[in-house]
Amino acid sequence: MTADVTLEELGTRLGLAFRGDPATAVRGLATLERAGPKDLSFLANPRYRRFLAATRAGIVVLSEADADQCPAAVLISSDPYADFARAAAGFDTSRRFEPGVHPSVQIDTSARIGADCRVAAGVVVEAGARIGDGVHVGAGCVVERDVTVGDGCFLGARVTLCRGVRLGRRVQIHPGAVIGADGFGIAMSEGRWLKVPQLGSVVIGDDCEIGANTTIDRGTLDDTVLEEDVRLDNQIQIGHNVVIGAHTAMAGCAAVAGSARIGRYCLIGGGAGILGHLEIADHVTITAMSLVTHPIREAGEYSSGTPLQSNREWRRNAVRLRQLDALARKIKKLEQE
Amino acid sequence: MTADVTLEELGTRLGLAFRGDPATAVRGLATLERAGPKDLSFLANPRYRRFLAATRAGIVVLSEADADQCPAAVLISSDPYADFARAAAGFDTSRRFEPGVHPSVQIDTSARIGADCRVAAGVVVEAGARIGDGVHVGAGCVVERDVTVGDGCFLGARVTLCRGVRLGRRVQIHPGAVIGADGFGIAMSEGRWLKVPQLGSVVIGDDCEIGANTTIDRGTLDDTVLEEDVRLDNQIQIGHNVVIGAHTAMAGCAAVAGSARIGRYCLIGGGAGILGHLEIADHVTITAMSLVTHPIREAGEYSSGTPLQSNREWRRNAVRLRQLDALARKIKKLEQE
Amino acid sequence: MTADVTLEELGTRLGLAFRGDPATAVRGLATLERAGPKDLSFLANPRYRRFLAATRAGIVVLSEADADQCPAAVLISSDPYADFARAAAGFDTSRRFEPGVHPSVQIDTSARIGADCRVAAGVVVEAGARIGDGVHVGAGCVVERDVTVGDGCFLGARVTLCRGVRLGRRVQIHPGAVIGADGFGIAMSEGRWLKVPQLGSVVIGDDCEIGANTTIDRGTLDDTVLEEDVRLDNQIQIGHNVVIGAHTAMAGCAAVAGSARIGRYCLIGGGAGILGHLEIADHVTITAMSLVTHPIREAGEYSSGTPLQSNREWRRNAVRLRQLDALARKIKKLEQE
Repeated sequence: MTADVTLEELGTRLGLAFRGDPATAVRGLATLERAGPKDLSFLANPRYRRFLAATRAGIVVLSEADADQCPAAVLISSDPYADFARAAAGFDTSRRFEPGVHPSVQIDTSARIGADCRVAAGVVVEAGARIGDGVHVGAGCVVERDVTVGDGCFLGARVTLCRGVRLGRRVQIHPGAVIGADGFGIAMSEGRWLKVPQLGSVVIGDDCEIGANTTIDRGTLDDTVLEEDVRLDNQIQIGHNVVIGAHTAMAGCAAVAGSARIGRYCLIGGGAGILGHLEIADHVTITAMSLVTHPIREAGEYSSGTPLQSNREWRRNAVRLRQLDALARKIKKLEQE
Repeated sequence: MTADVTLEELGTRLGLAFRGDPATAVRGLATLERAGPKDLSFLANPRYRRFLAATRAGIVVLSEADADQCPAAVLISSDPYADFARAAAGFDTSRRFEPGVHPSVQIDTSARIGADCRVAAGVVVEAGARIGDGVHVGAGCVVERDVTVGDGCFLGARVTLCRGVRLGRRVQIHPGAVIGADGFGIAMSEGRWLKVPQLGSVVIGDDCEIGANTTIDRGTLDDTVLEEDVRLDNQIQIGHNVVIGAHTAMAGCAAVAGSARIGRYCLIGGGAGILGHLEIADHVTITAMSLVTHPIREAGEYSSGTPLQSNREWRRNAVRLRQLDALARKIKKLEQE
Repeated sequence: MTADVTLEELGTRLGLAFRGDPATAVRGLATLERAGPKDLSFLANPRYRRFLAATRAGIVVLSEADADQCPAAVLISSDPYADFARAAAGFDTSRRFEPGVHPSVQIDTSARIGADCRVAAGVVVEAGARIGDGVHVGAGCVVERDVTVGDGCFLGARVTLCRGVRLGRRVQIHPGAVIGADGFGIAMSEGRWLKVPQLGSVVIGDDCEIGANTTIDRGTLDDTVLEEDVRLDNQIQIGHNVVIGAHTAMAGCAAVAGSARIGRYCLIGGGAGILGHLEIADHVTITAMSLVTHPIREAGEYSSGTPLQSNREWRRNAVRLRQLDALARKIKKLEQE
């Protein structure tokens, strides 16, 4: 897969101090528990410290505090997860590909494909689409008319880019994602729903990553916007005209309703919901499955929901939840007595 | 894109009073904030009233009460959002298409395609399928055997219609939706799951709209049914044998478990859950991320969940939630003293 | 569709006692409410007992206790749902197919397809993939490089199996599912996200079933694992390195974060969330839309969330929820007085 790399080379490349034989060489990656002598491993989450003493890894990236417990050669890092990510990129062959356009693809004559692209089998590229250089378009992708895909983008299999969507450079989109479907715009009139045309688009900044089966709707009139380096996990739903600030990350199944504006460097937990037409400041964290119903003006961590209990205890407490206002009134009365 | 249309023409077409130069002409649509002199705009949500005084729009659809603050020509409406939707339809070119069947499509010889259809590249239509007149079938769609698609339907890219599914007229389905996959029917027997065959189908009424990556399962024995004009946003999950009444709308990520029956004109909020085998009356509203665990027999608005707080306050209260029944007993005891 | 089968034959095949004319014959399946004289039906959920006395079904599978109320021939079962499932399998033609490889498919010359497979139109099979015997690959599926699909698997339309994913035997995957997309691995470094390469795979055991548009991410270094007979409904999200024990079932829209380990014979309700890096014991039930934030070490049923109320009552109680800690302190003070 890849050539061996030594402890000394890794230390130099990453700018990290190391201990052990500088010639110790690795050629793969593995967890502490599973690693062998030719693997690079790491310790970041303290939950996994119990595997350190017995690891068979060749080299481990870890903090100064953990270094003494490690039987292997070590790279000392103030942020072992980030430094492992940096080291691991050199072992990652999943983004390398042979350029070439599969003979089965259907590319409209007015579409343009850049240099050094791979366009896999079954891909459809419609009229007016422009795909940059070094782009990977996975099998079965649909690139509708007038879409723009920047240099170095990586689309997995069966991604759909609807008409006019614009991707920056180095955007990664995983299989099944749909970018630019109509937003949910309906108006009730005389007992029936009228469709509100969705005529905006979606603009995705450089270095964004979008998970499998995630959906990002096109704007009604203006565009839906992801600024640079936004990271979305799988099955996330982004409504029309949402704006997501740079470097914000969302975990799986989060959902954002139309016209919400989310700040920069926010962390949105899995399954969290954000109602429409509200603003969230920079550096806000929302814990998993919380619902944001009002604007958030200050950085910080926010939560809703109730703790998990045995169903028996939960039922007893749930009865009281329905009486909570009445209970509060009783307390007030007792205080007045 | 489209020809200019004058204030007078719009007023006549929509049956609305207007103020300003009757010859004022627009040719596009935009928000109050972004509009230029050739754009039609609207004011419906009071959140956006702050953009009215400075708008550069040519014409604005708004209520009588807002008309005086508007520097542009106005169309006076008792429901500006609906009237804007009606006006906007004339500017919407996204549903217009050149009829034609792409040479790459795979259509079984026993399938029938109506007149004036567009069948885009990469589409598969299996045996016995019947597609009506004026239908758009987007790139990469799969129409399995014996499916029926009514006149005027619009399927986006990569829609899957499983065997035997029946769509009425003018149904719109967005990319990635899956209609008619097996319902989740399993029975435990001798320590293993048995699959319960899913032999019903899905029947979708006229004028329904179904969002991107939404899934609607086929019935076990009877059919899963959407009555006419049901509007489903993205990533909604509809279980087997569910029946959804006419004109009901659901926001993104809502989920309905098997055999639930939802009334007409209901509004189901984003991420809401509805358990199986229960009935919901007409005109019921469920707020976002609420869970319906019991039948709802009266029209009205229903909610569950807890309000968002800073994580610090939330933790303090969450501890008390676990003690709620005990707290209620203490109050009772205090009252008796 | 299928030949007639008699009461006597069904009783013998299923090992069930019966009452009625042994020659009573059925050829289809239907609910009690809709069945005709040539249909087999069943009564398992007491909600549907009201349809028993008037059923026109030819034969009904039901419990001893319900047999006297049934006007039709009966099969007496201690588990009518499971026995109906067993009987129904004989009437299910949805899994039968004509073997054959559609001429439009794109199969790499280094891929291997077993005997008696159906490979439908528009399928892509990449280099090194191995598909076993008797496999159904629905229209538009993408099988990436080095994937292994065991004998007797059934893939619906537009399933994506990413590079190196391994399926056991008789695995069923419904349309739009994505198996093996990159896990969500990112590390913040100098104000930007670094991608952590996702180099593990996904391993799915024999007899698993995976719902429409469900996503199962590949592991970071080790594999994501579903043991045998795991049953996942639609739109479920399984994070990287999750391990799900045999015979566990999850309802629609449940989500499991990275590195969680779920036991055997668990039942996870619709929309439930499970945080990462925690362990859940065998035989645990999580009710719908609950959030699991801590390890669960004992079998049993667990819940979180609040009961549904009218929005008016809910608002009154929600105010008190924000004051809960303060209320608890007041009670304490009252007790001390």
